[in-house]
Amino acid sequence: MTTDDRVRVSVLGLGEMGAALAGALVRSGYATTVWNRSAGKADDIVAQGAEEAGTAGEAVRSSRVVIACLLDHESVHEVFDPLSGELAGRALINVTTTSPAQSRELAAWAERAGVAYLDGGIMAVPPMIGRPESSILYSGSADVFHEYKPLLDVWGSSTYFGEDAGLASLYDLALLAGMYVMFAGFMHGAAMVAPAGVTAGEFATRAAPWLTAMTGALEGLAAVVDGGDYTVDGQQSLEFSSLDDILAASSEQGVSTEAVAMVQRLIHRQIDAGHGEEGFARIIESIRQPG
Amino acid sequence: MTTDDRVRVSVLGLGEMGAALAGALVRSGYATTVWNRSAGKADDIVAQGAEEAGTAGEAVRSSRVVIACLLDHESVHEVFDPLSGELAGRALINVTTTSPAQSRELAAWAERAGVAYLDGGIMAVPPMIGRPESSILYSGSADVFHEYKPLLDVWGSSTYFGEDAGLASLYDLALLAGMYVMFAGFMHGAAMVAPAGVTAGEFATRAAPWLTAMTGALEGLAAVVDGGDYTVDGQQSLEFSSLDDILAASSEQGVSTEAVAMVQRLIHRQIDAGHGEEGFARIIESIRQPG
Repeated sequence: MTTDDRVRVSVLGLGEMGAALAGALVRSGYATTVWNRSAGKADDIVAQGAEEAGTAGEAVRSSRVVIACLLDHESVHEVFDPLSGELAGRALINVTTTSPAQSRELAAWAERAGVAYLDGGIMAVPPMIGRPESSILYSGSADVFHEYKPLLDVWGSSTYFGEDAGLASLYDLALLAGMYVMFAGFMHGAAMVAPAGVTAGEFATRAAPWLTAMTGALEGLAAVVDGGDYTVDGQQSLEFSSLDDILAASSEQGVSTEAVAMVQRLIHRQIDAGHGEEGFARIIESIRQPG
Repeated sequence: MTTDDRVRVSVLGLGEMGAALAGALVRSGYATTVWNRSAGKADDIVAQGAEEAGTAGEAVRSSRVVIACLLDHESVHEVFDPLSGELAGRALINVTTTSPAQSRELAAWAERAGVAYLDGGIMAVPPMIGRPESSILYSGSADVFHEYKPLLDVWGSSTYFGEDAGLASLYDLALLAGMYVMFAGFMHGAAMVAPAGVTAGEFATRAAPWLTAMTGALEGLAAVVDGGDYTVDGQQSLEFSSLDDILAASSEQGVSTEAVAMVQRLIHRQIDAGHGEEGFARIIESIRQPG
């Protein structure tokens, strides 16, 4: 019998994501207590075998490990501030979406309360939970991460980034930033070709493999950034990366240029500062130093 | 002996890309004539077996199929306007980077001159030419595309989009737009995590598989766009897609918010127009209708 077989786990917050997390635990055989602020959310998960706690305090008292999947940072304080005495000595794994600063604040609060705190950032939508493509990032207490890793692995792949409780959230937001910006770039391309009678679906069949292939360039761009020398050979220069053709074609097609103009501004701030012959990777300097 | 074995091909323009195209043809056994406006560019390729023409006219006269890989739209006219009589009855495959409108203008010019015109957009950098990951998009004369497809396939995968000569260039620019915007999103993420001691290389090892996985969502987003109904179930709503957390964390990290703010504006124009409960795919309407 492993440690895990004896674990009872409590999940507080049964929105779509909380319900998906609790459901995956129940299906994996964990004795699971659930609680939600508003009634009726627990019915499905109770039918699958979870127990419903009448109060948040009851949910906290029933398990050594408490999962919080609430609305936001403020909700975490609302629920747990009155329970800090009861939470002391237990592990709190908070996967509520919070900013890095908010995660660090919660870690400090937990430390004062004698609670072992692990912060998580979920890189998945609820239907992905428990499937291999679901990835969850953690930082904060290494002890909590290692003790409960079998439990965390129920939800997807689990990666630990370090003791700084804000790091998982920071990584999460940085990856989401990349995703949203990529989606906007895809939509820009789809909008460009639409007036020529190309459907978004047809464009997606080309764009998905193209963008996937182009992620192969990220490692090389990153190596130039980390090397700190943007003059190294074999790169496309900033001057060669002028997006004038793309901007002109976008205007000709009658669509907004703002997605591409954003990249053009990052490029031009470096060209204007005299770095036009250096590599495209230098655009990170435009982001590092807000204009 | 196939048609191809008898083909002699002329390549005009020996910049990095033209030289790569000509080199691939020579290595595949095509009798190749090359020409460049300035001297000395042909030496390498002649050493590999190409013949150098003394003038552009001589290059045009030596082959039934003429490849143009010049600086820009203007250079194409400069080189070929005086040669329209000699080009008549031949095929012109123009892979010079031009806008969709410029490609259409060249197709009209070629039609008046009795020249069969195929326009190409190269989705590759010169070292990729001839390798499987090189992709070249074509539109214009279907006859030229089909007759010379074995030749075109020497350079990479060849896709034909239709008789509208501007379509390949439009597709090319739309895919490049997606790539540049994705690169900017990656750089934004790398800049966000850098102050926490995460190298760009470390971030790239997470971001490349993450963005690759997220290209899996493009088909679904496109289906919603093509369906024209942004209220369909199972989508993330625009209101839920608020990027406030990412913007706040970017500011906390001291980096520019402009890449993410661009996406936020696309989202908010739709929320402001009363569509906040509809799906994220609706951001394409912000691009289609410039503010």
